[in-house]
Amino acid sequence: MPTLSKKGINLPESPIRKLSGYAEKAKQEGKHIYHLNIGQPDIEAPASALEIVKNNTLNLLPYGSSEGSLSYRTALCSYYKEHEISLTPEEIIITTGASEALAFALNCICDAGEEIIIPEPFYANYNGFAAAASVAVIPVLSKFEDNFCLPPLEAIEEKVTPNTKAILICNPSNPTGYLYTKEEIIALGAIAKKHDIYLIVDEVYREFLHEKEARHFSVLNIPGLEDHAIMIDSVSKRYSMCGARVGAIVSKNKALLSTALKFAHLRLSPATYALMASEAALNADPSYLINVAQEYTHRKNVLIEALEKIDGVQVSNPTGAFYCIVQLPVADAEDFSKWLLTDFSDQNETVMFAPAAGFYSTPGFGKNQIRIGFVLNDKKLLRAVEILEKALKAYRSKN
Amino acid sequence: MPTLSKKGINLPESPIRKLSGYAEKAKQEGKHIYHLNIGQPDIEAPASALEIVKNNTLNLLPYGSSEGSLSYRTALCSYYKEHEISLTPEEIIITTGASEALAFALNCICDAGEEIIIPEPFYANYNGFAAAASVAVIPVLSKFEDNFCLPPLEAIEEKVTPNTKAILICNPSNPTGYLYTKEEIIALGAIAKKHDIYLIVDEVYREFLHEKEARHFSVLNIPGLEDHAIMIDSVSKRYSMCGARVGAIVSKNKALLSTALKFAHLRLSPATYALMASEAALNADPSYLINVAQEYTHRKNVLIEALEKIDGVQVSNPTGAFYCIVQLPVADAEDFSKWLLTDFSDQNETVMFAPAAGFYSTPGFGKNQIRIGFVLNDKKLLRAVEILEKALKAYRSKN
Repeated sequence: MPTLSKKGINLPESPIRKLSGYAEKAKQEGKHIYHLNIGQPDIEAPASALEIVKNNTLNLLPYGSSEGSLSYRTALCSYYKEHEISLTPEEIIITTGASEALAFALNCICDAGEEIIIPEPFYANYNGFAAAASVAVIPVLSKFEDNFCLPPLEAIEEKVTPNTKAILICNPSNPTGYLYTKEEIIALGAIAKKHDIYLIVDEVYREFLHEKEARHFSVLNIPGLEDHAIMIDSVSKRYSMCGARVGAIVSKNKALLSTALKFAHLRLSPATYALMASEAALNADPSYLINVAQEYTHRKNVLIEALEKIDGVQVSNPTGAFYCIVQLPVADAEDFSKWLLTDFSDQNETVMFAPAAGFYSTPGFGKNQIRIGFVLNDKKLLRAVEILEKALKAYRSKN
Repeated sequence: MPTLSKKGINLPESPIRKLSGYAEKAKQEGKHIYHLNIGQPDIEAPASALEIVKNNTLNLLPYGSSEGSLSYRTALCSYYKEHEISLTPEEIIITTGASEALAFALNCICDAGEEIIIPEPFYANYNGFAAAASVAVIPVLSKFEDNFCLPPLEAIEEKVTPNTKAILICNPSNPTGYLYTKEEIIALGAIAKKHDIYLIVDEVYREFLHEKEARHFSVLNIPGLEDHAIMIDSVSKRYSMCGARVGAIVSKNKALLSTALKFAHLRLSPATYALMASEAALNADPSYLINVAQEYTHRKNVLIEALEKIDGVQVSNPTGAFYCIVQLPVADAEDFSKWLLTDFSDQNETVMFAPAAGFYSTPGFGKNQIRIGFVLNDKKLLRAVEILEKALKAYRSKN
């Protein structure tokens, strides 16, 4: 039997998709599942994006530019300008989702054995991308009781070694929903600058802010950090176009971007129809994104209020994105999440969560936590919370 | 200034896209360019594929299964059955083009510093995928004068070391157009089995065979090689859908495929519209692919006949795919190819080739060779050859 790579064997399994086998089985048995485990929006994509694909007149699908068409990158510059981010098309490479943008970033800056610092809990696939690039993730704990704000700067800085190549955050954060403040971002920038390392910020949830007057501050707007700042973006969540697989790596560091372009050349080009839809999405009426953001804020309010009524359940307060971390009165939230699929139902319905332990890099952390994505409407969210409450009672009386 | 990775710095530039800056400039100056440098078919995609996208009723783009939908993988099994390859859906993972399938294969089987053996010249991006995975390419020369058939088995076997993880070929071959015989494939399989290494075969040009009675023999049909055989596939060339970015990694080795699935989970899912088009392409009338293959054979005949009339030009005889390697009476075919874009035109037209040196791993090899893709119709091919003939005269009289 020929052998597999150590890298492949050690690649972590996705905690988000880990329980999907049990979910498949439950569905086959006729159970309805409320999917709160995945960041898959249920809101309609912009009509402009959907229509352009329906009305396309292509008679074959050609390769495009590896970096994405100039017209799309130019249109993106206008979009960023509305967010007070000043860019030129040359500072943007279109990628196959934020996933590929992250993989490009890590491969451009890290060789095997080097390190990136990430506050935990973090988007679980960061672990996977790091493992795929043979890069070590060095976690710094951000705490539930602090609503997952930035850990103390000293705690971050003491993790910097000669092997450190970057600090990586998601702002606002998946999985915590925390919106980093301008001051926090600038402080992180100062650490990056001082140690001459990169600051990579995944800003795919930029629009989704839940507090009045809240403003998102981009890593690209830290003065003097042009060579160190890398921004990751995607149309997936913004326009409910996860299946487009269109993202971007954005930086003012020319050497970095020309290296990323070599990786982009390798995989030839982004997908034609998806690119077409992504460019047209930018033509959506400005009310589209305002309405989407308001809808997520409404859901957040409904969800948090309902969850807080359940005995023993504690909820972090998400100020952005569409996730929150919930502490359950159970010892092992993964076992509970699995049991929800295999052994529980209420009126033949159940609910699926992402166990939060998979979002921590430190073994044992987050064992009583789950991540909930509020990607269903308020009525469905309330029903899901009702199921959770009943399930907790049944699970705890059983154990 | 923060540093880049050695991996990123050392990643080779794409020889196919290397001259594209000069081409852009020539176009801006109003020159028409016959693009024979890239494997971008000009033939229409199947109507079934185009229509299903136009008629789609999606109102958002959801994530799909990381491995590709069961319905598509099931439909692919019927397609493979027509090619006498017996598969189950579980033996197929849908990828973002053959590019990603190759990256998955290399990452699943190789750690940094390990080796793969490839007959050269080979598809240049194999170099890039290997470099991106920190894997060393060990070339074995296949010769122009032998029409690029498989190098002697001893020459291949003597390259096998304890670090060797696989032999990789493309069948029929990009860039040589050589269709490997059943005997050659079985002999390679025997080497793979003997040394317990993988045999990876890129079979994306399976349908395009230029000799009567020619048959394509798949690596998946070598008896007893189930655990060692990996097949790479793509819809790009078959259906003129390069921009779909839909491919597959196929193997009967369960451990390999479950490792590849972890890499697939990381990047979430293939692109929605593209997947829809790829599945519908399988419903095209069988005459579609027969006609496409006949068209490429016709072009090949026209092209080769015209090229052979040029003084000092030698052409390999492609028996498959839609490329050939051409030896030019110049010392440096890259300089000539660049000069065609920067300094030459005939009636304001010129032609673009891929210098073949980039398809060799050994420095200095293939310097007087170019790769031509016959991806334009016969009339345009003849005009391109006419331009080449005039250009060669002008270039040689200048030097």
